Amino acid sequence: MRVYTFGSGTAEGRLDLVEQLGGKGAGLAAMSRMGVPVPPGFTITTDACRAFHADGGRSLPDGLLPELERGLTHLESATGRRLGDPNHPLLVSVRSGAAVSMPGMMDTVLDVGLTRASLDGLAAMGAGRRFALDSYRRLMEMYAEIVHGLDPSTLIGLRDDILELARVTELAALPLEYLEGLCAAYEKAMAEADAPLPEAPRAQLFGAIEGVFRSWNTRRAINHRRAAGIPDDLGTAVTVQAMVFGNLGPDSATGVAFTRHPTTGEPRLSGEYLPDAQGEDVVGGAHHVRPLARADGLNTDESLEATAPAVFAELQSIAQVLEGHFREVQDLEFTIEGGRVWMLQTRPANRSVRAAVRAAVEMAREGMIDRDEALRRVDPESLTRLLHPSVDAHARPRVLARGLPASPGAVSGIAVFDPDTAVERAGAGDRVILVRVETSTEDMDAIRAAVGVLTSRGGLTSHAALVARGLGRCCVTGCADIVVDERRGRFRIRRGSQVVEAGDVLTLDGSTGEVILGEVATTPADPPETFGALMEWADARRRLDVRSNADDAAAAQQGVQHGANGVGLCCTEHMFLEDDRLMLVRSLVLAPDAKARRREVESILPRQRRDFRALLEASADQPVGVRLLDLPLHDFMPTERAELREVADWLETPFDQVVTRAQRLRANNPDLGHRGCRVGLTFPELYEVQVRALFEAVVDVGGHDQLQVIIPMVTCAEELTRLHRRIAHMARRVARERAVDPIPFALGPMVESPRACLAAGELAKAADFFLFGTNDLTMTTYGMHRDDSGRFLPFYVDNDVLPADPFVRLDQGTVGRLVEWAVAAGRAARPGLPCGLSGAHAGTADAVEWAHRVGIDYVTCAPHRVPIARLAAARAAITGGEDA
Amino acid sequence: MRVYTFGSGTAEGRLDLVEQLGGKGAGLAAMSRMGVPVPPGFTITTDACRAFHADGGRSLPDGLLPELERGLTHLESATGRRLGDPNHPLLVSVRSGAAVSMPGMMDTVLDVGLTRASLDGLAAMGAGRRFALDSYRRLMEMYAEIVHGLDPSTLIGLRDDILELARVTELAALPLEYLEGLCAAYEKAMAEADAPLPEAPRAQLFGAIEGVFRSWNTRRAINHRRAAGIPDDLGTAVTVQAMVFGNLGPDSATGVAFTRHPTTGEPRLSGEYLPDAQGEDVVGGAHHVRPLARADGLNTDESLEATAPAVFAELQSIAQVLEGHFREVQDLEFTIEGGRVWMLQTRPANRSVRAAVRAAVEMAREGMIDRDEALRRVDPESLTRLLHPSVDAHARPRVLARGLPASPGAVSGIAVFDPDTAVERAGAGDRVILVRVETSTEDMDAIRAAVGVLTSRGGLTSHAALVARGLGRCCVTGCADIVVDERRGRFRIRRGSQVVEAGDVLTLDGSTGEVILGEVATTPADPPETFGALMEWADARRRLDVRSNADDAAAAQQGVQHGANGVGLCCTEHMFLEDDRLMLVRSLVLAPDAKARRREVESILPRQRRDFRALLEASADQPVGVRLLDLPLHDFMPTERAELREVADWLETPFDQVVTRAQRLRANNPDLGHRGCRVGLTFPELYEVQVRALFEAVVDVGGHDQLQVIIPMVTCAEELTRLHRRIAHMARRVARERAVDPIPFALGPMVESPRACLAAGELAKAADFFLFGTNDLTMTTYGMHRDDSGRFLPFYVDNDVLPADPFVRLDQGTVGRLVEWAVAAGRAARPGLPCGLSGAHAGTADAVEWAHRVGIDYVTCAPHRVPIARLAAARAAITGGEDA
Repeated sequence: MRVYTFGSGTAEGRLDLVEQLGGKGAGLAAMSRMGVPVPPGFTITTDACRAFHADGGRSLPDGLLPELERGLTHLESATGRRLGDPNHPLLVSVRSGAAVSMPGMMDTVLDVGLTRASLDGLAAMGAGRRFALDSYRRLMEMYAEIVHGLDPSTLIGLRDDILELARVTELAALPLEYLEGLCAAYEKAMAEADAPLPEAPRAQLFGAIEGVFRSWNTRRAINHRRAAGIPDDLGTAVTVQAMVFGNLGPDSATGVAFTRHPTTGEPRLSGEYLPDAQGEDVVGGAHHVRPLARADGLNTDESLEATAPAVFAELQSIAQVLEGHFREVQDLEFTIEGGRVWMLQTRPANRSVRAAVRAAVEMAREGMIDRDEALRRVDPESLTRLLHPSVDAHARPRVLARGLPASPGAVSGIAVFDPDTAVERAGAGDRVILVRVETSTEDMDAIRAAVGVLTSRGGLTSHAALVARGLGRCCVTGCADIVVDERRGRFRIRRGSQVVEAGDVLTLDGSTGEVILGEVATTPADPPETFGALMEWADARRRLDVRSNADDAAAAQQGVQHGANGVGLCCTEHMFLEDDRLMLVRSLVLAPDAKARRREVESILPRQRRDFRALLEASADQPVGVRLLDLPLHDFMPTERAELREVADWLETPFDQVVTRAQRLRANNPDLGHRGCRVGLTFPELYEVQVRALFEAVVDVGGHDQLQVIIPMVTCAEELTRLHRRIAHMARRVARERAVDPIPFALGPMVESPRACLAAGELAKAADFFLFGTNDLTMTTYGMHRDDSGRFLPFYVDNDVLPADPFVRLDQGTVGRLVEWAVAAGRAARPGLPCGLSGAHAGTADAVEWAHRVGIDYVTCAPHRVPIARLAAARAAITGGEDA
Repeated sequence: MRVYTFGSGTAEGRLDLVEQLGGKGAGLAAMSRMGVPVPPGFTITTDACRAFHADGGRSLPDGLLPELERGLTHLESATGRRLGDPNHPLLVSVRSGAAVSMPGMMDTVLDVGLTRASLDGLAAMGAGRRFALDSYRRLMEMYAEIVHGLDPSTLIGLRDDILELARVTELAALPLEYLEGLCAAYEKAMAEADAPLPEAPRAQLFGAIEGVFRSWNTRRAINHRRAAGIPDDLGTAVTVQAMVFGNLGPDSATGVAFTRHPTTGEPRLSGEYLPDAQGEDVVGGAHHVRPLARADGLNTDESLEATAPAVFAELQSIAQVLEGHFREVQDLEFTIEGGRVWMLQTRPANRSVRAAVRAAVEMAREGMIDRDEALRRVDPESLTRLLHPSVDAHARPRVLARGLPASPGAVSGIAVFDPDTAVERAGAGDRVILVRVETSTEDMDAIRAAVGVLTSRGGLTSHAALVARGLGRCCVTGCADIVVDERRGRFRIRRGSQVVEAGDVLTLDGSTGEVILGEVATTPADPPETFGALMEWADARRRLDVRSNADDAAAAQQGVQHGANGVGLCCTEHMFLEDDRLMLVRSLVLAPDAKARRREVESILPRQRRDFRALLEASADQPVGVRLLDLPLHDFMPTERAELREVADWLETPFDQVVTRAQRLRANNPDLGHRGCRVGLTFPELYEVQVRALFEAVVDVGGHDQLQVIIPMVTCAEELTRLHRRIAHMARRVARERAVDPIPFALGPMVESPRACLAAGELAKAADFFLFGTNDLTMTTYGMHRDDSGRFLPFYVDNDVLPADPFVRLDQGTVGRLVEWAVAAGRAARPGLPCGLSGAHAGTADAVEWAHRVGIDYVTCAPHRVPIARLAAARAAITGGEDA
C-alpha cells in the first residue's frame, strides 16, 4: 500500500509508520485518529518516491495511479467537492515530508486543482474573484518553478512589470483588472516556455506530486543531507490534502503554536498568528504577527486569546490533547478558516535548553513521562549554554573569526598581545583579552589576569585551553582565521583586510569559538529551578562517579558546586610554574648534585603544603586524586642566556656547567622525552617534595581517607613498583615525624600510552587503580600532537580523511579499544580494579556514555563540565551506554 | 641415587644426566662409557648440593654417607689403592661442576686423602719426598681456604717468610728441609686457627666436598649467576676422582686441546701443554707453554707432536672419538702421567665466529651433522665481526670512552668538530672522524666525507646512526662519557681530565662502541670460504625474504652483494636534503601558492629521476620499495634570518610573509606533527614530483614489475585511498606521455603507529601490502623518542626498570603484539596480504625469528645486516621461530 488516507476522525496511517509516511504524514494520521480536526487527505509513501527515482524520475510509477484514484475518492467524499469541478472545485496542497525533519529543503505546491475553468466556481464559494485570481497566480508561480523547473525570474519579472505599470508596490493593492492581466500574462509565458499549467486537474495534481518527489534530489537537499548525515535513499513522502484558507477574511487566520514555551519552557500554549493570511506569511517575517496568548507579548490586546477567546480555547484543548498523546512539547501549524480551527502539522518542538530542562522535569512531575524519559529529553552537551554566559543571539554580533570553543563563557575586553602588559592593564582595572599565537609557562600570570584568552594556534588540549579551563577563563584557541603579530601587537583576518590593534575591544564566546569585534550584550548563566531536580534524578540514576579536575582549591569548590564526587585529577604543574617557584625548579633540575637539589626542595615544600591543604579542605571528605608532576624537563629550561646566568648565580655554579646541563635536557620532541615518572625516577627529590607536602597537608587537615596518588606517564610496572616503595616510605616517615597513625593512600598510574594499555596486566599488579588519560593516549596512538596538527588536522576533518578530530571526539574504535583491553586485562590481574577516565574527552557526553559501557568507574572533567557528565552518565545507565 | 661412579670403560652416569651430574661429571661419565681413558671416580649430584644448602649448609645430608662409601669402594677397587692407606694412599681431586658452565667461579680441592701418615707412602710410590711434601703443602693451602674459610694470606705469609729465610724466590728452589719446615708451620698455624687439616682421610674428603658445595654460594658465584641469568637453585655437582699427576717427570705433562682450531676452525687437533706440571700451571700464564701440534706455532720442535708422537697420536685419536661422539668441537683437558694419557674434561669449545662458521660447514660436509644443525651452530649476530674490520684485540688499545655501536667497522682518523672543516680536510686527503653532539641535515656532506662519526647524544636510531649505516660509515653514537664542545673544537672525558682537541687522532670501533685515543691496528673483514656455503644453506632453508634498506644505488649494490632479495626500503629524504636541493624544498614548502610550488617542483624532478634510475638499475629485477618523503616539515625550515631571507629572495616573496609561514610550520613535537603522508596530502606537489620521477625512471630503465610505493606515517585508510588515486593517476599520465604500457606498482602504508595497527582491517582494504616500521611504532607505543630518552633510558636499563632498550630489542609483548594483531586483521580483510618488517629491529636476530613466527613475509634491514637476517631467518625456519 502506497497511499494512506486520513481525515474525519479516522486514518489508515499511524504514527509508527513514520518511515513510510514521513513526519508530517504520520502526524496528520495520528491527529486524525485522535479526532483532532485536520483537513482530509492522503499520504503517498516514501516507497513510491524511491520507486519514482529508481525508474529515472520521469513519471509516476504505473501501479501508483489506481491508489491515487482511491485517495482522491476519499478526499472528494470527505469534502463533498470534486477535483476540477467548475462549481465546487476541490483544491489541494501537495507537500513533502521525510521521516527526518529537513525544514525548508523540499518543495510544496498549494492550490493544486485550480484551473481557469474552475476560477468562477472558487470565487462563488464565498471568497470572491480577487481571492480566486490570487490563488491561481500563486499556483502558477509554484507550478512553473517546482514542476517545470522554470527560472523563477521569468514570472516574477512579469509581476514586477505589472506592479510598475499599475504604479503600486504590493499585490494586495493591485487593481483587479491588472491581476486578471497578470494571470493571463503568466499563462502565455508558461505556454511559450513549453511549460503550461495543465488544464486537466488530474494532470496538474500528478505533475505536482512528481515535482515534490523530484525536490528530494535538488543540490540543496543533497548538500543538506550530506551535512546532516541523512541517507540519500530515505526518500520523501507526499501529502495531498484539502486546502483550507486562512485568508478568507477577518475570522480566518494562520499560525504556529507551541504546547509549552519554546524558550522558557512555561507550561502554556504560546505562539503567533496572522489574521486573514496564508501559511507562509507567518514565518516569512514580512508581516506584523500577533501573539497567541496574552502572556506571549506586548500586544496582548491583539492576542488570539483576547480577540477570539473561544478559538483560543479550542486551540488550547487541541494542544493539550496532542501533548498528552505524544508526551512531548509539540510545534503546531494551524489554520483558522471562518472561525474553524484546522491542524496542519504537529511535530516535536525545537526548544532551548532551558525549555527542554523545564518541560522535561515538569512533564515528569505531571506524570506524563517518567524520570528516565525526562533525563533522555535533555542533551547533555546543551547544558553548557545553561551554565555559562553566552553572546546574546539577538545582538546580531559581527563575527570576525571562529576558533575552537576551548573554555566556555562570553566576555568582552581590550585586546592585549603581551603578557606583561596584560597583567599591568588588568591591574589598572581594564578587562583584558590576551591574544597570543599560543601560550606557554610565561603566560600564566597573564591568563590569570585576563577575562579571556584567544590563540591562533593549539587545540582544545593546548596549554591555553587547559589553563583557561582550569582557571575558569573564557578561551578560544586554534583560531586559524587570524594571523597574530605579537611583536607589533595586532592581528589580521586571514581572508580579508581587517586588522585588530592592541586596545581594540573584542568579545569572545568560548562556547561557540566566535571572535566578535566590539562589545556585545551577553546572556548571563541562569539555570531554571528545574535544573536542580534533573541533576538529582541524574545522580540517582547513574552508576559512574563524576569527579572534577581541580588544580587548586577554587576549582575544587567549583567542582563541588557543580555536583562533583570529589577531585579526580589535581595536576600539580602549576604549583611549580607559579611566580618565583619556576626559578626554584630550574635550579633544582640544573643543580650539580643531589645535595644541592635537596636544598632547593626544602624551599618549595611549605608552599606546596599550603596548596594541598587548601585543596583537601575544599574537597571535604570526598576522593582527591593528586597527580605528581608531569612536565617535560625541557619545559623548565630557560632558553635565554640571561636566565641561565641567573640560575648559575643562584646555584653558585659555573655558567658553562649550567649551559651544558641545560643543553643535555633539551629535547626535540619533549612530549616523548624526559617527562612524567621518568623525571620522578631520575630526579627523586621532585616527587619526594611533592608527596611530603601532600602527606603533611593530610596530617594538617586531620586526615583524609580517600587520597589517590597518581603517577603520570607510566609505561612499565617497575616504574610504579619503585615509586610506590618510595612514596610509602615517605608516608611512614611523615606519620612518624608527626606522631600520627599511618597515612592511607592509594597509588595508580595514568594509563596514557599504548604500552601502558598493552602491559595493563602487569601494571595492575602494582596499582590500586587506573586513571586513563585519553589526551596523551590519543596523541601516542595516532602519533599526532594536538598542538602540532593544526596545519593538517582541520584539512583532514573538513575533507573527511578523518570523521572527527580525535582530540575532541574519542576514537572509540582504536584509542577506546586500547582502554577496553586495559580495563579487562587490569581487572583480570586485579579483580575489581577501580578505573577512571580523564582527558578532554572525559567531559563529553559520548565519551561518558562509552565509559559507562566499557565498565569505567568514574570520569573526571573540568568543573564546568561536571553537570554534562552527570547527565550523560545517567543517560548511559538508562540506555546501557548505547546511543539513545 | 646421588652418587654415580665412572671409570674403567663403564659409568653409571650418562651425558643426558647433565642436570644431575653437571657438565664435568656428565662428560666424564660419557667419556668413560666410550672407553676413553679417564681416572676413575664418582660424581655427587646437584640434588645432594641442594639438600646440603636446604639443610643450612653445615654438614653433608645423612643419607648421603652410605652412597659416598659405595663410590669410594668403586674408586679403591678401580685404582687398587685405599684412602688413607699409609703405603698406597689413594689421593683424589674434589671438583665442582654445575649444569651450566661457570668457569673459575667455584672451588676445587686437589690431593685430598693425603695425611702426614701417608706422606711416606706417596713418596715411595715413585715421586719422592719433595713431590709428596709439595702435594701436602698444596692440599693444606686449598683446604685452609676452601673448607675452613681461612684468610689465604695466613698461610701465604708463612710461605713468603720461609722463601725469604731460604733466600729463594720460588718454591721449586726451596731446599727440602725448608719445605718440611713450611709444612710443619702450616700444620701449626691451622691448628692454632682451630682449622686443622683432618688427619682422618674420610673426614678430610667429606670436608672437601662440603667446601665445594659451599662455594656455590660465594658472593662471586652469586653475582656471576645474576649477571648471566643462571638460577640460584641449580646447585653444583661434585666429582671425586683419582688424582693423576702431570708433574711426575719429563714424560708427564698437562694440557688443553681443541678438536678443531678455536680461532680459524681448521679441522685438526690444536692446543697447548706443559711438561712436568700440574693442571693450573697451563692456564695460569706464568709458564712457557708449548704447542701441541707442529702446525700450532713457532716452537714446532717443542710440540708434543714432535717430542712424543705416539702420545700425540693417542690424543688425536681420542679427540676424534670425542668430536665424533659429541658432533661438536670439543675443548679438552688432559694429563699425561708417565707417558699415559688421561682425559679430565671434555666440553663444547668456545670459538671465534670464523671457527664456528668453518667448523659447522665442514662438519656438515663431513656428514657429522646435517645442514640445519650447521645453521643452528652459528650465532647470527656474531657475523658482524666477520663482515667488518674490527680493532685488533691484541693491540690492547687505550679505550677513552664507550658509546653505542651504531654502525660497524673500525677506523682511525683525525677528530674534526665542524662539518665544513670535515669536508675541507677530507677533500685535502685526510681521514676524518666527525665529532658532534648530535647530527642533523646540515651534517650530511660531512658524514659522507668522513670515515667515521662520533656523537655524544642520540641512540641507535638517531640521525647520525641512520645516515652512517646508510652510507656504510663507521659510527658511535650516544657516547655519554664525553662532553663535546663544538664551538671550541674539543671534547672532554666526563669522569677525568683528558681532553681531545681537533686534529688529534682517534680510532672508533663501530661494532663495540669503543672510542680509542690514537691509531690502532685493525683486523680486516675476511669471511672464510665456508661462509658462502653457510649463507647458501640459509637461503635454501628460510621462508622469510630478506631485503635491504638502500637510499641510493651504492647501498642497493651493497645489499645485492650481501645477498638481499631486493630493496625493501628506499628512504627518499636524502634526495631532498642533499646539496642545493634543500633550498628548493624550503622554497617549495614556503611558496605562497600551489603555482609557485609547482615551479619549484619542476627543478627537483630531473635529479630525482636520475637517483631513482640508478637505484632501479642497481637492484636489477628484484623488488624495490620506495618510501615517499617522511620528514617533519619543521625539519626543512631554516631558523636563521639570513636563510629565511635567502628563501624570500628566491621566491620573490615579502620577507615577512615567509617568516610568518615558517612560524606556522614550526612544531614543538615535530615527530608527532606535520610529517609523512600528512605532508603528502596537504602539499600534493611533493609526492607528485616524487612519483613522477619514479615512474619516469621506471620507463627509462625499460620497466620494472616489482615496484612498491610506500606511504609513510599512515594512520587511517582514507589517507591511502586518496594518495592511491593520485599516484595511479600519475602512473597513467607518465605512461601516456611516454607512450608505454601501464606502469605496474603496488602501494602500501608504513604501519608505524598504534592507530595504524588497530585500524589494520580498514587499511588493508586500501593497501597492496603492509610495511611495519618498528622504530616509530616503538616510539609511539612507549610515548618515548629515542633521541630524547638519553637522560633516563640508560638509567632504566641499568636498573632493570626495563629489561632492555626497546629501540634496540623489539618489545615483542607490546609493540610486537600490535604488529601481530595488525597482520591478522590485515589478512582477515585481504587474504594473503604481504607484510614486511622494517626499522632497526628488522636486522636483529631475535626480531627476525619473531617475524618468522608471527607470519611476516620479509624483513628489510641495513645492507651490512642482511647476512645476519638471512641466517636468523633460516634458524627461525628450523625452530619455528622459537628460541633454539
